[in-house]
Amino acid sequence: MSDRVNRQWRLKSRPVGMVKESDFEYVEEPAVSPGEGQALIRNYMVAFEPAMRGWIEDVESYVPPVQIGEVMRASSVGVVVESKTPDLTVGDVVTGTLGWQEYPLVDTTTPSIFGGAQKLPPGATAEQALSVFGITGLTAYFGYLDVGQPVEGDVVLVSGAAGATGSVVAQIARIKGASKVVGIAGGPEKCKWLTDTLGLDAAIDYKTEDVASAIQQACPNGVNVFFDNVGGEILEAALDNMAQKGRVVLCGGISGYNEETPSSGPRNYMQLVIRRCRMEGFIVIDYMNRIGEAVADLGNWVAEGKLIAETDIQQGMENVPKTFLRLFEGKNRGKQLCQIGEAP
Amino acid sequence: MSDRVNRQWRLKSRPVGMVKESDFEYVEEPAVSPGEGQALIRNYMVAFEPAMRGWIEDVESYVPPVQIGEVMRASSVGVVVESKTPDLTVGDVVTGTLGWQEYPLVDTTTPSIFGGAQKLPPGATAEQALSVFGITGLTAYFGYLDVGQPVEGDVVLVSGAAGATGSVVAQIARIKGASKVVGIAGGPEKCKWLTDTLGLDAAIDYKTEDVASAIQQACPNGVNVFFDNVGGEILEAALDNMAQKGRVVLCGGISGYNEETPSSGPRNYMQLVIRRCRMEGFIVIDYMNRIGEAVADLGNWVAEGKLIAETDIQQGMENVPKTFLRLFEGKNRGKQLCQIGEAP
Repeated sequence: MSDRVNRQWRLKSRPVGMVKESDFEYVEEPAVSPGEGQALIRNYMVAFEPAMRGWIEDVESYVPPVQIGEVMRASSVGVVVESKTPDLTVGDVVTGTLGWQEYPLVDTTTPSIFGGAQKLPPGATAEQALSVFGITGLTAYFGYLDVGQPVEGDVVLVSGAAGATGSVVAQIARIKGASKVVGIAGGPEKCKWLTDTLGLDAAIDYKTEDVASAIQQACPNGVNVFFDNVGGEILEAALDNMAQKGRVVLCGGISGYNEETPSSGPRNYMQLVIRRCRMEGFIVIDYMNRIGEAVADLGNWVAEGKLIAETDIQQGMENVPKTFLRLFEGKNRGKQLCQIGEAP
Repeated sequence: MSDRVNRQWRLKSRPVGMVKESDFEYVEEPAVSPGEGQALIRNYMVAFEPAMRGWIEDVESYVPPVQIGEVMRASSVGVVVESKTPDLTVGDVVTGTLGWQEYPLVDTTTPSIFGGAQKLPPGATAEQALSVFGITGLTAYFGYLDVGQPVEGDVVLVSGAAGATGSVVAQIARIKGASKVVGIAGGPEKCKWLTDTLGLDAAIDYKTEDVASAIQQACPNGVNVFFDNVGGEILEAALDNMAQKGRVVLCGGISGYNEETPSSGPRNYMQLVIRRCRMEGFIVIDYMNRIGEAVADLGNWVAEGKLIAETDIQQGMENVPKTFLRLFEGKNRGKQLCQIGEAP
């Protein structure tokens, strides 16, 4: 038994409607010493993504739901503090699905989609490992390139464009030769950042603009690839402005994640017929055997200064649930992180 | 000027909600004699399809809307009665988009997507030319094979399976090696016809069964290809039962064609993400350069007795609008036709 205290946040209740801080419970317990094949990690940077809202619903999905009383599932970066496995050495900085806790135990002998911990890509910071080289960057990379099937000259529209995945998609679109990249985001600050810092051709503020008209104005010949993180009315506005043979990449639908029951799907989905379009969903875990090529490309683009990996870092273990809520309040720009301990 | 009377039905008003007979107006006028490059046809068999409901809406679509006062647009088969074009000879039996009228004039000099008249494929009856070798058969063929991308062993689900397109899709699926073909239709008679005559593995009666449960029971490992002619709750039920990497072929959405405003899209469209599925629309006019291969295959299957081209033939020029309504009342089995004159 270690004398370390494993501070943690557990799922207390399944949220009804908007997720609340009170759906999680703060617990302290002694950290567990590693057995054979295990290592103890000190987590110091936790990452957040909208999909986590789905993990706490009691429904069958692409991953099993987090159970009531379980430590909340999340990606994070930590440092190995005790090890009884040859795979990990004390001092190694690792990333994994280690949860909202300070001292996760990892087992390198039992394969599991959530188990294990991988050393960071060489030269990568914790922030980069959790954003551009993590699930976010991979989601953007495979979603845009594999599902979106872009060709040079395409007009590309991205919703949630100032978010973690959206901002990477928009930049990859530019790198890969889109003739125009348009982002949809909330508020003038995010929109200004999209055009001035990320170099997008146009940004649409969904809080103040008529999104359908704004898309039509920005993309008068239609949208070839729409990468959707939002759903709802924004998806409808995009469907009404697709070019023939356009592709809608369904990555997420954050606008509906906190609805008790889905109020409506895209009422105009028959535009897919009229415009001969394709709408396709994907889950990044299907691409795990191709991480190498993605991280190589993403790494080069970051090194060349073509790809900005923006992060929003909050502070403190006590603020972890509150930081999760920022995603649904539209507060984050780039990847939402929370630092819960000192970097080694 | 011919002394023939061109009996016709013109669009009188744009339907609000369910289309009515009174949205069309019966008119008689003298048939026009053909000028240079033209021929006069005596129409005797008119075809109906749900998509025609869209053509009379005043909205931009893949074809321009029929204008108020215009003869209603429709495919038909007729016989050439006067000709001033070397392309057509008196007595030729032809098909084209000749409308709800007895004596259409065709112009072979001005290319147009609606102009012109083609001789029937050799050996084809008028019924076959308007069903399995016409828009219906081509829609089924390219929609299922090109958009659906079936592989041998797929589990295939078809909505509107007793309709013109659906019944051909279901049979092509069987011919092309689906491991299971399930049809959704309205009423025990249609369901019995699907299993007993067309040889489907199962039929679901949407009027009396819980469609989602019935799909789950018939396809416990999920649906690989769903060919949708209906939309609405049936689309939702199918989305909840797709297999991973499944393909939804959007052909039509007849359940919504007579809604004043679309009430809802598929509320569970995010299943496309969770199940990594694709939903894709198409319009058969994009495949017109490949008619040859389709008609060759379809012709062989009909000749070999593998493909039944079912038709429902009503009688009389006076019953043309009423026959159109049968589509939305779910009355037709197979292709809906109306004979308005004697075959030559």
